[in-house]
Amino acid sequence: MEGDAIMKVRRFALMLVVGISLVGAAACMTTSISPADQAEVAISSGNLPPGYRDWTLISIARLGGKVNDLRAKLGNDVAIKAYRQGTLPFPDGAIITRLAWKAVPSEENNDALRPFLEQQLGKAETGRLLVDSFVAGPATNIQFMVKDSKKWASTGGWKFIEFDNGKPAPQAEGGEKSCYECHEPAADTDYVFTRYAQ
Amino acid sequence: MEGDAIMKVRRFALMLVVGISLVGAAACMTTSISPADQAEVAISSGNLPPGYRDWTLISIARLGGKVNDLRAKLGNDVAIKAYRQGTLPFPDGAIITRLAWKAVPSEENNDALRPFLEQQLGKAETGRLLVDSFVAGPATNIQFMVKDSKKWASTGGWKFIEFDNGKPAPQAEGGEKSCYECHEPAADTDYVFTRYAQ
Repeated sequence: MEGDAIMKVRRFALMLVVGISLVGAAACMTTSISPADQAEVAISSGNLPPGYRDWTLISIARLGGKVNDLRAKLGNDVAIKAYRQGTLPFPDGAIITRLAWKAVPSEENNDALRPFLEQQLGKAETGRLLVDSFVAGPATNIQFMVKDSKKWASTGGWKFIEFDNGKPAPQAEGGEKSCYECHEPAADTDYVFTRYAQ
Repeated sequence: MEGDAIMKVRRFALMLVVGISLVGAAACMTTSISPADQAEVAISSGNLPPGYRDWTLISIARLGGKVNDLRAKLGNDVAIKAYRQGTLPFPDGAIITRLAWKAVPSEENNDALRPFLEQQLGKAETGRLLVDSFVAGPATNIQFMVKDSKKWASTGGWKFIEFDNGKPAPQAEGGEKSCYECHEPAADTDYVFTRYAQ
């Protein structure tokens, strides 16, 4: 009977381990949609993807003249990993977004920077310098490139979409073609112009 | 003996649960240093904090003239949460970093944008516009503001530090005072100039 009890203990322990494993596996199965897939589903449904504002910065740029903006490119985990490892073409699931804001002169920054820059660069340079301090003002629009080499094969494997005020822009319907045409010169870098800023 | 065996099974199961709980608690204790604390320790030791390049974008800006850069402000989780909830002063553990790159004209971007902008804005505007396309070029330096209201009480609760080529800048030693003096006009926003870009 003593041996029998030990067997029961062993069987119970085994069942417990199997049970815990099954619960764990079930938990994994219910969350098996990757963040990249979730983002793609959201974008394809005309919604901004969850958490995109926390994606990693790829680089920043500005466009002057009448557009006069400051722009940031962010990438989801798949895109950032590809950038850092130099993987081309980008794997399916890579998503790049371009945020943009009107460039607004900042007298507050100019005033704060003036003493520091006068010391660093001399007064002659500073006058010219400080009228040139700009910060991000009102947001303009948000664009996404979503990689799915099969689904969007006719436009380099990328879906291109723009959001205005959180909704797909009117020109977004069927707009992939025109976006793609502009991106064609970047064919060597999988139709992506932006380089990762070290 | 049957009852004895069941007792043994119960005791074994209880021990297993207690054991798993203890292992879990121990695991939590060994990882109880928060990412914010880890970052602060790294910065105080003269190293760039792990993972800072993946922190969330707060906003972007540019400084013209001789400096001629494009700059991005990123925040760790503590800082971003405070920004989004409008918490002032920033809680201890908040870290803000400013990355900067020389602004470099991009003929590649100009060429790609020209057809699109000509269509949108007309040819007269485009000539002026497109010579103004800039991207992030070589990195300049990286600055951090680390919040610890007790440790850095004499400089608004912030440690200010600059890294050049991954190492603390020579002027970083005792440089908190001069950084703080420039940040004093932003006392109402806890000595932080940068607003979160929606």
